[in-house]
Amino acid sequence: MKRSIPSDLDLSNRSVSVLCGGVGAARFLSGLLDVVPAENITAIVNVADDVVLHGLHISPDIDTIVYTLADAVSSTRGWGLEGETWQAMAMVSRYGGADWFNLGDSDLGTHLYRTGRLQEGASLAQVTAEIADAWNLRLSLLPVTNDRIETRVTTVDEGEIGFQEYFVGRQHDVALTAVRFVGADEAVPAPGVQKALADADVVVIAPSNPVVSIDPVLAVPGVRAALANRTSATVAVSPIIGGRALKGPADRMLQELGFESSVLGVARWYLGLADYLVIDDADGHMADEVDEVGLAPTVTNTIMSDPDVAAALARITISAALA
Amino acid sequence: MKRSIPSDLDLSNRSVSVLCGGVGAARFLSGLLDVVPAENITAIVNVADDVVLHGLHISPDIDTIVYTLADAVSSTRGWGLEGETWQAMAMVSRYGGADWFNLGDSDLGTHLYRTGRLQEGASLAQVTAEIADAWNLRLSLLPVTNDRIETRVTTVDEGEIGFQEYFVGRQHDVALTAVRFVGADEAVPAPGVQKALADADVVVIAPSNPVVSIDPVLAVPGVRAALANRTSATVAVSPIIGGRALKGPADRMLQELGFESSVLGVARWYLGLADYLVIDDADGHMADEVDEVGLAPTVTNTIMSDPDVAAALARITISAALA
Repeated sequence: MKRSIPSDLDLSNRSVSVLCGGVGAARFLSGLLDVVPAENITAIVNVADDVVLHGLHISPDIDTIVYTLADAVSSTRGWGLEGETWQAMAMVSRYGGADWFNLGDSDLGTHLYRTGRLQEGASLAQVTAEIADAWNLRLSLLPVTNDRIETRVTTVDEGEIGFQEYFVGRQHDVALTAVRFVGADEAVPAPGVQKALADADVVVIAPSNPVVSIDPVLAVPGVRAALANRTSATVAVSPIIGGRALKGPADRMLQELGFESSVLGVARWYLGLADYLVIDDADGHMADEVDEVGLAPTVTNTIMSDPDVAAALARITISAALA
Repeated sequence: MKRSIPSDLDLSNRSVSVLCGGVGAARFLSGLLDVVPAENITAIVNVADDVVLHGLHISPDIDTIVYTLADAVSSTRGWGLEGETWQAMAMVSRYGGADWFNLGDSDLGTHLYRTGRLQEGASLAQVTAEIADAWNLRLSLLPVTNDRIETRVTTVDEGEIGFQEYFVGRQHDVALTAVRFVGADEAVPAPGVQKALADADVVVIAPSNPVVSIDPVLAVPGVRAALANRTSATVAVSPIIGGRALKGPADRMLQELGFESSVLGVARWYLGLADYLVIDDADGHMADEVDEVGLAPTVTNTIMSDPDVAAALARITISAALA
């Protein structure tokens, strides 16, 4: 059953909250800012792949979103800053220090500021707001929690390792059997998170990795319930296109955890949480099956190769949930 | 009474330990390396002006010595690295973060490495040895202690502040009434420090600030006693020339703490600790008074404007103590 999505809905007074990982979420938010006023948008961001390296608190997903929305992100890398230099890490390498997680010099300034403010007693949410403000971002950017939660993955060959050791250190090229979020049970949602989920006209689950970007957001007590209890719509955008993740290991992770690497696997993963699923044109032939799983499908171009596609995707995603 | 110092002593099998602050000590050590084998030199370095900024452990005196001896120090600044870039601090400034203590990008690599290793459980002495090794230094470079001690100064206008806030933040341009070294009473000398002081043929007190560079070294329990109990000679090089410090606030600090800002003030400060005092040609007319205070004076050029002067000063300093 193909639904017809109106293309001319007035979205200017709609409020939207978005559950976010990194690059995919950043591009989606970038498109969303073209169709919904920034003041009406709340991004709730994964922090379970935050990592402390060299004593510095690094929040990769928050930074990717900030740099992307500020139009400062490296277009070739998709993370970090355009025009970056790498003097500090060259020195770390001279000492034989841990240089597997590359940190650009300007980017280091963000981590220095964040770490300094956290040590002064500021919360991660406060610091994130300050950083977003310094880049003139006007949406509300919330870490899902101010508490420390930490994704750890069980690998077949090495046992349990930290997420960044898996993702960056091993280039996510090793087999997994389990994922857990240390500290999640005791974490408390950051101020505003639950209200943003309860009150939003539409909640979007961004096209991020369901296993290691969205699941740790949901693992913070109260977040999954806030989503499940919504009376308004929740819509997910599939990060799987034609059976593959555009970027990162979402495809093999879904399989390793017993789900299909397809929009059906995504639909089953989000069943009970999302009402709608936006899937790519390449997966249009599976729309009826998505519907049978229990999520109403919308088929469109989800490959955000330029700002116009991102804006069109954001518009159809919000409209699908409102129609 | 002018002593005659032989200029042709064989110093190649002499062992020398040097109590060190920053720039003056670094230049002296640089000269010493020209006249005594590196393997015979132990530098015992002040760590009380170490500071934690943005979560990073910064050891200014150790780094100044390492960079100077590695011939990597900025010749214009006297601290930090030649050819340095400043991208990270520009970003900290964008956020309105604490940017009064400037940290170059390459230099940051040193602090990242040190902080990471300390958090892994390495001692400051281990990390310092690793850093020195990475720069191919062959002398023994020891922080006076692995424990955290912290110079704090009482200012007339602002009460007590940290040393770097005074030294860098206020450009040491405020009046002091007191100096203390928090944590010194409980500190333990780093492994090798006491032995290096007991066994050295000559101990040199480098031309560093007596109040905030040398005194905190002496404040670590056991260090002052090791110096006082020496049977071999200890020789100090005056950091005061013609009543002034070449660099930094040693002159006004001596006065503010009730000592004369002259080689006599220095002699009185080190009485009971040093047997000999090397003073500059400019202060030759005060040699007899230094002698009367109780330290045997040696008069020479102490302005280490080039490596030859530094080497000549090192030679005469060691020879004076051995003669």
